[in-house]
Amino acid sequence: MNAEIVTIGTEIALGQITNTNAQFLADQLSRAGVEVRWQTTTDDEPSRIVQATRHALSRSDLVCVCGGLGPTADDTTMAAVADALGTSLALNDEHWQAIKQSLKPRIEDVPAENVRQAMYLKGGQWLPNPVGMALGALYEHNNQVVAVLPGPPREFKAMVTQELMPRLNKQYGTEKAIFSRTLHFFGRPESLLMDDLKPVMEKWPQVVITSYVQPLEIQVRLTIHGVNEMTAKQQLDGAQADIAKIETGAFFGAGEGITLAGAVVEMLKKRSLHITAAESLTAGMFQSTICTVPGASNIFDGGFVTYAAEQKEKMIGVPSATVDEHGVVSSATAAAMAEGCRDTVGADIGVGLTGVAGPDALEGQPAGTVWLGLAVKGQETQTKLLHLLAHNGRQSVREQAVQSALMMVYQSLK
Amino acid sequence: MNAEIVTIGTEIALGQITNTNAQFLADQLSRAGVEVRWQTTTDDEPSRIVQATRHALSRSDLVCVCGGLGPTADDTTMAAVADALGTSLALNDEHWQAIKQSLKPRIEDVPAENVRQAMYLKGGQWLPNPVGMALGALYEHNNQVVAVLPGPPREFKAMVTQELMPRLNKQYGTEKAIFSRTLHFFGRPESLLMDDLKPVMEKWPQVVITSYVQPLEIQVRLTIHGVNEMTAKQQLDGAQADIAKIETGAFFGAGEGITLAGAVVEMLKKRSLHITAAESLTAGMFQSTICTVPGASNIFDGGFVTYAAEQKEKMIGVPSATVDEHGVVSSATAAAMAEGCRDTVGADIGVGLTGVAGPDALEGQPAGTVWLGLAVKGQETQTKLLHLLAHNGRQSVREQAVQSALMMVYQSLK
Repeated sequence: MNAEIVTIGTEIALGQITNTNAQFLADQLSRAGVEVRWQTTTDDEPSRIVQATRHALSRSDLVCVCGGLGPTADDTTMAAVADALGTSLALNDEHWQAIKQSLKPRIEDVPAENVRQAMYLKGGQWLPNPVGMALGALYEHNNQVVAVLPGPPREFKAMVTQELMPRLNKQYGTEKAIFSRTLHFFGRPESLLMDDLKPVMEKWPQVVITSYVQPLEIQVRLTIHGVNEMTAKQQLDGAQADIAKIETGAFFGAGEGITLAGAVVEMLKKRSLHITAAESLTAGMFQSTICTVPGASNIFDGGFVTYAAEQKEKMIGVPSATVDEHGVVSSATAAAMAEGCRDTVGADIGVGLTGVAGPDALEGQPAGTVWLGLAVKGQETQTKLLHLLAHNGRQSVREQAVQSALMMVYQSLK
Repeated sequence: MNAEIVTIGTEIALGQITNTNAQFLADQLSRAGVEVRWQTTTDDEPSRIVQATRHALSRSDLVCVCGGLGPTADDTTMAAVADALGTSLALNDEHWQAIKQSLKPRIEDVPAENVRQAMYLKGGQWLPNPVGMALGALYEHNNQVVAVLPGPPREFKAMVTQELMPRLNKQYGTEKAIFSRTLHFFGRPESLLMDDLKPVMEKWPQVVITSYVQPLEIQVRLTIHGVNEMTAKQQLDGAQADIAKIETGAFFGAGEGITLAGAVVEMLKKRSLHITAAESLTAGMFQSTICTVPGASNIFDGGFVTYAAEQKEKMIGVPSATVDEHGVVSSATAAAMAEGCRDTVGADIGVGLTGVAGPDALEGQPAGTVWLGLAVKGQETQTKLLHLLAHNGRQSVREQAVQSALMMVYQSLK
């Protein structure tokens, strides 16, 4: 089965917003073994919606039309798709009553045109919207399948994962063909990582191993086709175990929705350890990233942004002599920051981050030079020098520094 | 003039990465008065590149084909576009010598196939690549224009802004038709903001005023067509001045590349004031955002992440009685945090952020409840209660809290 994603929206066509829906859906379909060959975007003009849908039907088995299901007159997607398919609109009256009921507390007279959000394609199924008003639609036509989905990303993702994908899997068996698992890595270049995994590829020839470079990690996907679930699980488990044996320095988790910060928080919780940090170039981003994880308060009480040299001394007792002798961006300063914040807060683990975010050099060290310090109670303090790529700007240097520090903590806990 | 953007790349078609290039180019073209009606994405398969290019030529004046200009065999875009246009490839030999020269230190024998990066469309112009190897191309064909551009975003943006747009403006006069200016707002809902601006729209009927909701701001674009540059400037200045009179609470700047953090840092620099913060729910994100701005060290020395209640007392002397009596999420605690960090660091301005990021409620207060404190030396400390939308998750609550705090600082400095 191959697919085309048609996105409707003037704001996307004109470049006012990025089309994240198409990527999300393409990824979901790919994981289910459906190959996305075409993505088309056009504006809200009904004739172009019709044209785009017809053109997609001329070359793709599955056509997903996304966006333009709002309650107002410029939301014409459902009618235009009906037109392209030679069908008409059907009303889900129960849903229309529910819409009116839910709007009543806020809107005295619900406009009659809102009824369009209760319409679907006559002869097809309607798709419930788990988090919004507009119904989606699923329609079969000459062995082709057309899906219509809402535009707001929250509604879109909910309908794709909870309604569309389960139906595609059940009705068209997309799922049967494929099993996959995602492994997460940080800190090893993609080409070297894939070289490392060559023995695993040879040992498990049925498992296809592919890599995807993400902004702050490398994902390795293990995929297996044409076997039953139990065999698939055995093969994936076997390959994963062998990878974990080889790649001990960069692997941090398997599964969906895994982040390095999440893995670190999870490990700290299990060990009942508290962490803190003193941040210079990252200026709070390490601590903020730890606290993206719900429940971070179990392992984090607070920490410091020690941007200026004198605050390193004042807040956490980094001796000014250390900074004077070794420089702000040095192993000694990073170690003293890590120990200083750990002892001041009374945590088990202290992390120090100091470096040159750029654009300018500092103390003769180029942008991208970073020292990390890691002070674990009862262990010798470690430091690590990074030479990060600086050509994507200071924000990128800071993000890489945070991720590297998280990896350093993760490694020390493993 | 209307345009179509054709993106080539298997990684984008399959949803492994988001297509940010198309949005960037669509926005650039829109600002120059070129309407983008279609965007098409397909994979690296040469026959589909030819098909997509031909189809775009059947409906669009300007066709921009983006991606697939790398040095390897699966980078076939330039040849496929030549095929679609009925032309062939031309070699820029000087550039090919330069490629070989620059690769020599790293690669002994430069592969002969790398020559593809020195190719362009015969009968057209080549476009220099300001930051990479691959040439782009510009080609005129029956009053239509085809541009071929590289895929890596850094190279893409550089070639679009430095090479493509100036040529389009010069050769096809796109620029003559349109002058625009972007104003930046935060903290007022889009519909109310646009209601506020109605008198300005009536007073300046030639100036088209449109709004664009961005994740952390609302952009209002003023556009004027069909007048000379001096008249345009007068009209835009007049409309902007009137808007600035009306919207005193939400406006924070005019121009490209303006951020609220940048505006705050700029103002602090001008006044030689130093800022600090004590952050609870945002856990360092406010300070980290301040430090996205190069030169932040002129106005920021450091600050605190006071996540746990006892650290609020220990680090910056927030009396535990205040927290006990009023709660962690309260006006009194936010004020004490703002004053406490200001006085501990010795800064001019202290900001306190405390609230409920979610997903769970805290002390009976729902996710999205946030108190901000602002303590400016010599002024009475202010606090502000926010009820932020929590349905997009805890990260969104924290980002909105940071932006609201920046706006509170900006307002107090104005």
